[in-house]
Amino acid sequence: MDVSANKDPRAGRGDAYVVGVDFGTLSARALVVRVSDGAEAGTAVAEYAHGVIDRELRGRELPPDWALQDPGDYTEALGVVVPAAVRDAGIDPAQVIGVATDFTASTCMPVLADSGSGSAGTPLCQIPDLAARPHAYPKLWKHHAAQPQADRINAAAHERHEKWINRYGGKISSEWQFAKALQVLEEDLEIYQRADRWIEAADWIIWQLCGTETRNACTAGYKGIFQDGQYPSRDYLAALDPRFASFAADKLAHPISPLGGLAGRVTPAAAALTGLPEGIAVAVGNVDAHVTVPAAGSCAPGTMVAIMGTSTCHVMNGTELAEVPGMCGVVDGGIVAGLWGYEAGQSGVGDIFAWFTRNGVPGEFADEARRRGVPLPQLLDEKAAAQPPGAHGLIALDWENGNRSVLVDAGLAGVIVGLTLATTAPEIYRALLEATAFGTRLIIETFKASGVPVTELVVAGGLVKSPSIMQIYADVTGCPLSVIGSEQGPALGSAIHAAVAAGAYPDVPAAASAMGRVNRDVYRPDAARADVYDELYAEYVRLHDYFGRGANEVMYRLRAIRDRALEGGSR
Amino acid sequence: MDVSANKDPRAGRGDAYVVGVDFGTLSARALVVRVSDGAEAGTAVAEYAHGVIDRELRGRELPPDWALQDPGDYTEALGVVVPAAVRDAGIDPAQVIGVATDFTASTCMPVLADSGSGSAGTPLCQIPDLAARPHAYPKLWKHHAAQPQADRINAAAHERHEKWINRYGGKISSEWQFAKALQVLEEDLEIYQRADRWIEAADWIIWQLCGTETRNACTAGYKGIFQDGQYPSRDYLAALDPRFASFAADKLAHPISPLGGLAGRVTPAAAALTGLPEGIAVAVGNVDAHVTVPAAGSCAPGTMVAIMGTSTCHVMNGTELAEVPGMCGVVDGGIVAGLWGYEAGQSGVGDIFAWFTRNGVPGEFADEARRRGVPLPQLLDEKAAAQPPGAHGLIALDWENGNRSVLVDAGLAGVIVGLTLATTAPEIYRALLEATAFGTRLIIETFKASGVPVTELVVAGGLVKSPSIMQIYADVTGCPLSVIGSEQGPALGSAIHAAVAAGAYPDVPAAASAMGRVNRDVYRPDAARADVYDELYAEYVRLHDYFGRGANEVMYRLRAIRDRALEGGSR
Repeated sequence: MDVSANKDPRAGRGDAYVVGVDFGTLSARALVVRVSDGAEAGTAVAEYAHGVIDRELRGRELPPDWALQDPGDYTEALGVVVPAAVRDAGIDPAQVIGVATDFTASTCMPVLADSGSGSAGTPLCQIPDLAARPHAYPKLWKHHAAQPQADRINAAAHERHEKWINRYGGKISSEWQFAKALQVLEEDLEIYQRADRWIEAADWIIWQLCGTETRNACTAGYKGIFQDGQYPSRDYLAALDPRFASFAADKLAHPISPLGGLAGRVTPAAAALTGLPEGIAVAVGNVDAHVTVPAAGSCAPGTMVAIMGTSTCHVMNGTELAEVPGMCGVVDGGIVAGLWGYEAGQSGVGDIFAWFTRNGVPGEFADEARRRGVPLPQLLDEKAAAQPPGAHGLIALDWENGNRSVLVDAGLAGVIVGLTLATTAPEIYRALLEATAFGTRLIIETFKASGVPVTELVVAGGLVKSPSIMQIYADVTGCPLSVIGSEQGPALGSAIHAAVAAGAYPDVPAAASAMGRVNRDVYRPDAARADVYDELYAEYVRLHDYFGRGANEVMYRLRAIRDRALEGGSR
Repeated sequence: MDVSANKDPRAGRGDAYVVGVDFGTLSARALVVRVSDGAEAGTAVAEYAHGVIDRELRGRELPPDWALQDPGDYTEALGVVVPAAVRDAGIDPAQVIGVATDFTASTCMPVLADSGSGSAGTPLCQIPDLAARPHAYPKLWKHHAAQPQADRINAAAHERHEKWINRYGGKISSEWQFAKALQVLEEDLEIYQRADRWIEAADWIIWQLCGTETRNACTAGYKGIFQDGQYPSRDYLAALDPRFASFAADKLAHPISPLGGLAGRVTPAAAALTGLPEGIAVAVGNVDAHVTVPAAGSCAPGTMVAIMGTSTCHVMNGTELAEVPGMCGVVDGGIVAGLWGYEAGQSGVGDIFAWFTRNGVPGEFADEARRRGVPLPQLLDEKAAAQPPGAHGLIALDWENGNRSVLVDAGLAGVIVGLTLATTAPEIYRALLEATAFGTRLIIETFKASGVPVTELVVAGGLVKSPSIMQIYADVTGCPLSVIGSEQGPALGSAIHAAVAAGAYPDVPAAASAMGRVNRDVYRPDAARADVYDELYAEYVRLHDYFGRGANEVMYRLRAIRDRALEGGSR
């Protein structure tokens, strides 16, 4: 297709390119994308030098559940992957009209307010006398040491009937901005006090590119409790700790920028770092999961995008505000400006399959995989696919890593029911695949029951490569499954935002229509299999409610017994 | 200790020996035992030529759930193991004063009433024109194809309020005499009609030895519904099928002999077969589990003997009749004449461990076992023993092979609760060991709650070789564990009965005191571990009741879905 007829001379469609950079947990990846049609021209990836800092920092051991990063790794990676991707694309850097990024979230950090004279939001950990202080570093999304703070945040919110709490399924996570900041205040007051600003890495990296502080609507809403134009009130924050009363006003408050908006323009310093032209558009920051929605061309309300990897994130636009029990959050403009962005999630998906593959599969299958020269997970997928639905006689709950939606309970654990002396490992494997599909269906049905219709399911993430998992999801949900057409969903989504910020498209949905990629209805449900799964799903829901809604709190008690056993060590 | 002072010249204690023969599922074992003190002098074992006939008979495929044997194998094995054991003992066969046997049960068959002239209870399958008819063969204990008949037996019993039904925990098993005989009647009437007698293999083998039909109190009671001096009434049997009305009167009825009684004397033919002296005492038949009680010197009321192997059988004497919910049976003189013999059981124990070892343990452990030169089960035992109780955070239900006591429900299935991404195979293994221990504790507590005190636990069977399993049982039950002192429990128990039948002792308890072997209190419960297990046991009971007593009949529904899936094969 010749897209040159559509060329917009102002933005240079056709020969114009944009760069999207996806900052993941361990690495950053840049993707060079043609503005006119989303063609992926070049890519490059670089691992962070320090990775996840969760054991020790500068020779001192970190407590359990900590997870930090070094922000120098982010800028260093930026300086590597952008020029490399542009080289890989074989284009002239001058053809690049915009850049955008997405990040893990909530990954947040204390910084100075400096800006302009070469320093832009200097992280406290880059100040020499603070470099040995753990709380001076960015807390990675999976830093879980602020659970006591999160517990108090939730208790106070419910006690005071804060209306925003129900926008988050009734629970603020220990992974988010407030819990992590409160932990800093309580455990290292000096760091808290010396921080001019408390900022998402998603916004901090933009500051590095354009020299200007911005706050994006996505992280502000999902991670920063920004609702109806405001942060939680001073009174509420004072109830948590009097010293915390001005946290939002002092360290967060800043106009919120819509996604796809122009944050600023590439500074001379950033141009030198990345090889990009000085002065090109820098889009407002964004989050990896949410930015995948336009990458899959799926901005329409009712189209749920499931990003399926070690865990699954479900993101979807809706036209109306509804409070869906147990969702992660609903945010005005949280995915696309002008629509309500809904997010839900499953905390263990690919992680569960990998755990079982490592810990529950006897050697004969590894031997068979070796003989046939296929990876073990592929062999298990094949053996799972060969089973008629229901033939294993099993039902499982997919809570090996807790439950994020709809129960929002990290204390839950996995269950397998129906084992017999004839049960085999590939049968349990299939039951676990199905359990995660039932979890997705329950999320979809909870949305529907709350007045948020889900009309289509689009899948992205690493698990799309498994046809048997995909077919099970189609059969279990009864929805045809569309599949994202890019292997670099987040980076493509960022590139789409760059194109919008550069003015090549009027808005993100328009850019997504032209640049996003989705293969429609790749997996269609089979009516006979779907009937069997309707029956099994009813069993899943019954067990889900029994173990998850208080009828038998055995999992909490087992956890308490376990913790005592591991402390005391009576044997 | 010099026992010659106690020598009874009439019975030849001291230099006198007896032979016990244990007929198992796949083989028969003979043990030559000194009458004075139970010293085991020699042993020999022989496998049955036809083993378990469960796939095809004479080239014709058998239906699912069938399990037959060839009675020629029993006599052939008898003719091998007895002479071999006597040779192994290095004694003169003339020193043998008695012989006794124990058998699997209910293993029962249709036979002619011939006796005397060389033929003694000829099995119908040995009549040439019937040799191709499956129903002419002994139905092994684990023949499960008579479940429809068992269901009707139970329904009619409850409908008619037959008082004997509560002596069997409310359920007659498809494994027992009546269900199997009714199946013959309904599926091959000619065989049913040509059978003069319907007899346990336990009694049939005695007929071969002494030429006389006898019926022992144990199988008559536990497997033949013989209670309060009678079989089920003609009216009741007619309600099952009018043609079945005279079943008990025609094919079963015969005086019942007490255990340890004299069935008769070795015939010339049997002497020729076995090399034993003609005319020595043959004891009344018995069952492998029940005969283990005297072998462990544990005839005292309140001492429960658990025979732990692939499954577990619990047998115990009591002074009073009580109806314990879900027990397998209570029989007057069923273990020892003059006491009420109680039996309960767990249908999967060692079988569950073996299933998991084969199907749930990744190759790394098999590799480690190989490197260290230990069997994999032993490695898993060691790794299980190294875990503090409760540290795995798991609780399991031990129903992979259904539940025999106290729920009496073959349709139940296994459950594991509490899995996390950190759960390892040795942790699940330990949870399964514990689950079977909780099952034993629940049986003990059900006996206690029904007014049948259990004051001591004695363990026999293959699993006594695992110290970690034994310690878990001690900690879970809170009882010191005594262990049988013989590796040939059933054969020793039979030998004890032979000594009584020969008149060497006045009764079985007296013989058991002299000849039985038990090591007292080998495993003692640890108070701290027992406290943890009290908590975990409460969780076990809660899940047991939820899944087993009707609150959630998910297991039946999963089974129905499975059966449909395997029939229909929609995939």
